[in-house]
Amino acid sequence: MTSKKAHLQLASLLGAVLTALPGLAVAAPAAKPNVIFILADNVGYGDMGPYGGGELRGYPTPRTDQLAREGIRLTQYLVEPGCTPSRAALMTGQYSIRNGLSLLGLPGGPNKLSAKAYTMGQLFKDAGYATAIFGKWHLGGEPESLPGAHGFDEYYGIPPESSWDAAADIPQVMQTHSAGNIPEKVLIEKGGWMVQQKGNGPLERVKPFTLAVRAEVDNELTDRSIAFMKKEAAAGKPFFLYLPFSMGHAPNLPSKEFAGKSRVGQYGDKMMEGDHHVGQVLDALKELKIEDNTIVVFASDNGPSGQYFMTWDASGLGLPDMGSPGPFRGSLGEPTEGSIRTFAFIRWPGHVQPNTTSYAMFSIMDFMPTFATILGTKLPADRAIDGVDQTAVLYGKSETGARESLLTFIGPDIVAARWKQWRLYFKDIALTGSGQQMLGGMFSSAAPMYYPKIYNIEVDPHEDLQLPNYLWAGAPIFKVVGEYEASVAKYPNPPSGNLTNFRGR
Amino acid sequence: MTSKKAHLQLASLLGAVLTALPGLAVAAPAAKPNVIFILADNVGYGDMGPYGGGELRGYPTPRTDQLAREGIRLTQYLVEPGCTPSRAALMTGQYSIRNGLSLLGLPGGPNKLSAKAYTMGQLFKDAGYATAIFGKWHLGGEPESLPGAHGFDEYYGIPPESSWDAAADIPQVMQTHSAGNIPEKVLIEKGGWMVQQKGNGPLERVKPFTLAVRAEVDNELTDRSIAFMKKEAAAGKPFFLYLPFSMGHAPNLPSKEFAGKSRVGQYGDKMMEGDHHVGQVLDALKELKIEDNTIVVFASDNGPSGQYFMTWDASGLGLPDMGSPGPFRGSLGEPTEGSIRTFAFIRWPGHVQPNTTSYAMFSIMDFMPTFATILGTKLPADRAIDGVDQTAVLYGKSETGARESLLTFIGPDIVAARWKQWRLYFKDIALTGSGQQMLGGMFSSAAPMYYPKIYNIEVDPHEDLQLPNYLWAGAPIFKVVGEYEASVAKYPNPPSGNLTNFRGR
Repeated sequence: MTSKKAHLQLASLLGAVLTALPGLAVAAPAAKPNVIFILADNVGYGDMGPYGGGELRGYPTPRTDQLAREGIRLTQYLVEPGCTPSRAALMTGQYSIRNGLSLLGLPGGPNKLSAKAYTMGQLFKDAGYATAIFGKWHLGGEPESLPGAHGFDEYYGIPPESSWDAAADIPQVMQTHSAGNIPEKVLIEKGGWMVQQKGNGPLERVKPFTLAVRAEVDNELTDRSIAFMKKEAAAGKPFFLYLPFSMGHAPNLPSKEFAGKSRVGQYGDKMMEGDHHVGQVLDALKELKIEDNTIVVFASDNGPSGQYFMTWDASGLGLPDMGSPGPFRGSLGEPTEGSIRTFAFIRWPGHVQPNTTSYAMFSIMDFMPTFATILGTKLPADRAIDGVDQTAVLYGKSETGARESLLTFIGPDIVAARWKQWRLYFKDIALTGSGQQMLGGMFSSAAPMYYPKIYNIEVDPHEDLQLPNYLWAGAPIFKVVGEYEASVAKYPNPPSGNLTNFRGR
Repeated sequence: MTSKKAHLQLASLLGAVLTALPGLAVAAPAAKPNVIFILADNVGYGDMGPYGGGELRGYPTPRTDQLAREGIRLTQYLVEPGCTPSRAALMTGQYSIRNGLSLLGLPGGPNKLSAKAYTMGQLFKDAGYATAIFGKWHLGGEPESLPGAHGFDEYYGIPPESSWDAAADIPQVMQTHSAGNIPEKVLIEKGGWMVQQKGNGPLERVKPFTLAVRAEVDNELTDRSIAFMKKEAAAGKPFFLYLPFSMGHAPNLPSKEFAGKSRVGQYGDKMMEGDHHVGQVLDALKELKIEDNTIVVFASDNGPSGQYFMTWDASGLGLPDMGSPGPFRGSLGEPTEGSIRTFAFIRWPGHVQPNTTSYAMFSIMDFMPTFATILGTKLPADRAIDGVDQTAVLYGKSETGARESLLTFIGPDIVAARWKQWRLYFKDIALTGSGQQMLGGMFSSAAPMYYPKIYNIEVDPHEDLQLPNYLWAGAPIFKVVGEYEASVAKYPNPPSGNLTNFRGR
């Protein structure tokens, strides 16, 4: 916050002088800024250079370091504990459970985005934007769940109900093949196809999603993104580009260009590759002379995948993904801070002060209302919107932001909550075993125990010390839960995946 | 390493131009550079800004960030798993066990520095330097163990056999008083005195080491350091200043000036205070116009103290120390990477390229031979020196440095070893329970089990995945152990503290 203060002071002191300096120009908000949302996959809080990763971990991330210098770095960016839930929250500005997506989507599974959902794609389309998603959707493959049904003009990527492991995310295949030797036949049988969709047209198979394609896929997505940017810039049409990379998701197969580039194996190689792709997007904006009128977000969907997810090398030998939650506890699928806090950068020259850091609680759900405010549009009033407008954080006008609480769901259960610096678990759901909860107990090893736990996440980031003396903090948390339950009474949730509908949700 | 390469390139490109720029002057090594060694206490790898702490954790560290920009940041700086052992290794360039100091020194305990030890103080004194230590010695209070017996002209600090918790480090007192309410009477009875020594004269009591003195002690040490620097600069005499701060050691009682300065309680306040004191030293060097001829090291002695060590606030309420080992596992007293890897910065304008990072293995023992090389002097040939000359790392001439292995001792046992990126435990000594091993089982909760474990610390920094496929890496490690044992046969170790002398050591 200090640096932010410094910048505000600087701004007020230098006043008009600043307008002369590129990147500090205090311009009026542009009517329709382009928005590029780059989403990494299972990359932890501690993985990128500006958060203590990057070069310190054996893989320099110079372009991400550049983003930190040119924009705002969020140190309390909060998400949901898994890919599908976080992406549902990002796309809708609602807790994933409100769209029945609070568990990981699996091919053939029950979780899919409902036709009623109002998404970020639709928000931008309704505002007259060209819209595209290149990469991983993971919100369901039914016609009403596809990107084309939710405002995206263009979609190219992996199967919309699948993740990057493609066929490997099907347990039987996982158990009988390492990703290094899944027969192409199996991949294709299991629906391992690259797909595309034009507007709300049919989903078309483009080519088999082989491991060779898998290794180079972020190259392909970046190329298509830059082509899209050039096309829309030439047409003078504002655009929204959603770019959910494979970067970080096991198996971390680096592209030919980056294989062996880091000292620390495939995970490091893939971080360097992703950093390079982010740089390619930044370079394209500069080349197109639209960087001042483009908001760039680079963030992750959830914490690191932990040891349950292996990085397969060509020999099929399992090495652990080395994603780090930084000082926090746990990884993907757990309700702990290390699972739901990760990295986020936002750059918007002239509007977001460069080289600033904010510790405001900022949920992935908050992007939707924040963008709505920037566009001057409204979100639908016929549903509960859990995200809040955080433009004041972007503009450096608020240190603490508009959010002071967050609930964490796993399936139909509220398992944990944050209120200010307090973190409460409603029951102890065995914090060992990364991913076991999110994956419906696939890896479950420990039986849950039932009693509340409370931690002060600021003084005890690793959640080592329960604080019986602080159980009073439960009161405001239960108030938040009560408000959520009232909203559910008014706007009932759909059935939530493959768990029983605990407590009526 | 990338930024290092960039800088070397820069240097070769700009050549003479650089000599015009302060801080980049490519001068010939000065005959006798001043050396200031600032040592933090139990501050973890993840605690300072340039390692993912600082502002990200709620306490900005701008002066440490400055050190990172102006010097080299070591990402594989390795120490011993506790205060006394690490400080013994720093002072002698040998594994602490070679001086019988491989366990934590406790008042009345058997561990003390032997008269035969050749220390860094003596090294600089023999080279004609003025020498001083202000702060914590922790290598014994016997006449032959005191700083004055080991080359230091001036000593002011806490009792030489004690740590910052003073009386609170005596278990009975620890159990009956929180540091917030230890009666001054008890402190004094237990030898809680601030002491001084001139040359090898008698140890003099200056004033009771009360909690009020404890809270302001780093202020006092900084003031005395700056006075010493001014005096010697005026006299034109090169100096060696050893400044072991209280910063980071429980109880983290911040000075009045910094109490409440961070958002995250006393630990954050104390980090900000320590960062400020580092800045005061840097400012004094600038003011005295000797910064170009002064080597500044800022490092920690070992990993964070973990939850076994509480930070007491005035109410006596225990809050956990929030020190973080970064992506590594464990804390003070354990043989894990999080205990033996921490932060280190080295600044030497014109000799160490600014804003560089090195991943070379660099032991705290390596400073002694490295300084000897810089001074052009030799270390005694009548003993085993475990440290190696790392000037090539400082000068940016070697990426990997002169070290490829390190042993870790707890008491008389070799409990773990590093060889390149491999980490081997000779037996599983229950990694739960921070500090329990180093403190002779004071906190012991789990019985040790006996089998080797091996990890790849670069791809698996948190030591989550044992690698049976990599047991071959045991061979080079056992070779290192064999070389150590041969050296012990030639130069026997003294009895090592209060544990039985396992395997003849």
